[in-house]
Amino acid sequence: MQLKNDLLLRAAKGQATERTPVWLMRQAGRILPEYRAVRESLNGFIELVKNPARAAEVTIQPVDILGVDAAIIFSDILVIPEAMGLPYTMEEKKGPSFPRTIQTEQDLQRLKVADAASDLGYVAEAIRLTKKELNGRVPLIGFAGAPFTIFTYMVEGGGSKTFSKARKMMYQNPALSHQLLQMITDSTIAYLKEQIKAGADLVQIFDSWAGILPPNQYEEFGLAYIAQICNAIQDVPKTVFAKGAFFARKSIGNLACEVVGLDWNMDAKESRALVGNQKTLQGNLDPCVLYAPYDVIRKETKQMLADFGNQRHIANLGHGVYPDIEPDKVKCFIESVKEFSTK
Amino acid sequence: MQLKNDLLLRAAKGQATERTPVWLMRQAGRILPEYRAVRESLNGFIELVKNPARAAEVTIQPVDILGVDAAIIFSDILVIPEAMGLPYTMEEKKGPSFPRTIQTEQDLQRLKVADAASDLGYVAEAIRLTKKELNGRVPLIGFAGAPFTIFTYMVEGGGSKTFSKARKMMYQNPALSHQLLQMITDSTIAYLKEQIKAGADLVQIFDSWAGILPPNQYEEFGLAYIAQICNAIQDVPKTVFAKGAFFARKSIGNLACEVVGLDWNMDAKESRALVGNQKTLQGNLDPCVLYAPYDVIRKETKQMLADFGNQRHIANLGHGVYPDIEPDKVKCFIESVKEFSTK
Repeated sequence: MQLKNDLLLRAAKGQATERTPVWLMRQAGRILPEYRAVRESLNGFIELVKNPARAAEVTIQPVDILGVDAAIIFSDILVIPEAMGLPYTMEEKKGPSFPRTIQTEQDLQRLKVADAASDLGYVAEAIRLTKKELNGRVPLIGFAGAPFTIFTYMVEGGGSKTFSKARKMMYQNPALSHQLLQMITDSTIAYLKEQIKAGADLVQIFDSWAGILPPNQYEEFGLAYIAQICNAIQDVPKTVFAKGAFFARKSIGNLACEVVGLDWNMDAKESRALVGNQKTLQGNLDPCVLYAPYDVIRKETKQMLADFGNQRHIANLGHGVYPDIEPDKVKCFIESVKEFSTK
Repeated sequence: MQLKNDLLLRAAKGQATERTPVWLMRQAGRILPEYRAVRESLNGFIELVKNPARAAEVTIQPVDILGVDAAIIFSDILVIPEAMGLPYTMEEKKGPSFPRTIQTEQDLQRLKVADAASDLGYVAEAIRLTKKELNGRVPLIGFAGAPFTIFTYMVEGGGSKTFSKARKMMYQNPALSHQLLQMITDSTIAYLKEQIKAGADLVQIFDSWAGILPPNQYEEFGLAYIAQICNAIQDVPKTVFAKGAFFARKSIGNLACEVVGLDWNMDAKESRALVGNQKTLQGNLDPCVLYAPYDVIRKETKQMLADFGNQRHIANLGHGVYPDIEPDKVKCFIESVKEFSTK
């Protein structure tokens, strides 16, 4: 299927684009009333994740409603621990929670490397349905959590302020930590390959908690595993978004990925200097700018585009869009990117 | 009163020291059973903050028990909003909570600039008692929250994951935000002057949430007010610790402060290059290293000291010590600094 709008893929590969492509992390989600209607018709978030037809439906909503240049499959990074044998629940406003966590060698032995084709077949099915329905309008992004971020959830059992349990394990039992990280990595590689086989045109690796590690530890427990994933996936462009890991930008520039995601703390020009000229940068408008009046959104978006330059850039926020942002403010951002980046 | 151990002050002023001074953020706190005994004998955290005799007692505990080179007055950054007219409560494990918050011009009009001498006299009294009891053994550090961090608490009403309310106000009503920040700044300057009059030998400004702002916004809403404080306080050295604000290190190097605090994400050599040679650096061992076995703590501490060099450095963790760290691990860190930094 030939894509009608392949701006995202051309930008990712470093090919010329007539304007900057734009999409938003969490664009398929609570900002849209249409999403909330689907969600409320089902019994919770995880049921939606596991329902390919409805997941495809909410994946396509922002393409129709917001006019973004890419869809991203509606799913959750925590499907990987579940497929490895560690189920979780998701409570509104409280976030994910794991009844069982990994603390010991015995806990680890109860896990398996995910059988991506069978255990995660519902995601591949959602991708196939989405691709069919999109009918080439825009590319579809697949994704997974980075091994370190998944590791923290599996050890902490949920979110945390200091991530003390996960970090304690890394210092007290580095061997066990590496074993778990390797199992997550193997599961993730298999999972992303299934997503690509089903039709994902680009995959993004989200390392949400990268910023909590000191630089040397992030190299060993974080980037080493992302590197394995980047090396194993060859058929589509890969984006690495390591939120908070300002100190790792140079190292990420050396990974076998095509796109580097930036959060809103990271200066565009400094990041370009650190990452080098062989990667595309993605980001990084402060998500809170979308609380501002329209004229401020337009001014800040224009400034961001100027800072990145009009090639090798994929416009996005520096974080997932916050659920209480008005859809019209999101549209203003998207339209501003299209307007100001057109040659 | 001549100090017997003035390593901290000499290091802060850039004078030669025979070894690197060391103390820990949150050293007077839950890591010590002796602190927990005092706390349990009273009716909660805020009662302890407001009891000068007991606050002095817990301030001195880590000097006696851990052998640190400085005491830091036991208090809380949120005494400032309270003195401005916005009281709070503190619940174990839940953190601070403000029943009323600042959302509108009317809310602001109900506040006042703190009358530091009367409203916060209990802190000055705790400082006087501590100085008397310390009897010159080590210097006493005073402190306050940075205006931006205090602002976020007053608008959010507590901690937050995204600080959406405070950040929304900054984008939707920058004038009101600046008015509130100025009132906090005026209160803080008066408060720090009272601390110094009572005997504080150095003051530290804690900007705990600095890292949530994009660089340009942190200059305008964060550093501009810290600059006012640094310019207004002349009698003692000042430390600025802007956690997470890696992007602001160069700007902080231009403030009229003597010491720049670093968190554990910030590389020592890179920070030195950004901050320049006219400041002392403080930090920045990963607080989670203290979960590690003793030999790892010694090795990592030695490496940190080597990274900073043996002058213009005050050893500390990159964040407050976590409450579940064993005191013997803290002692190992302190003794390692003393051993490895001695010429």
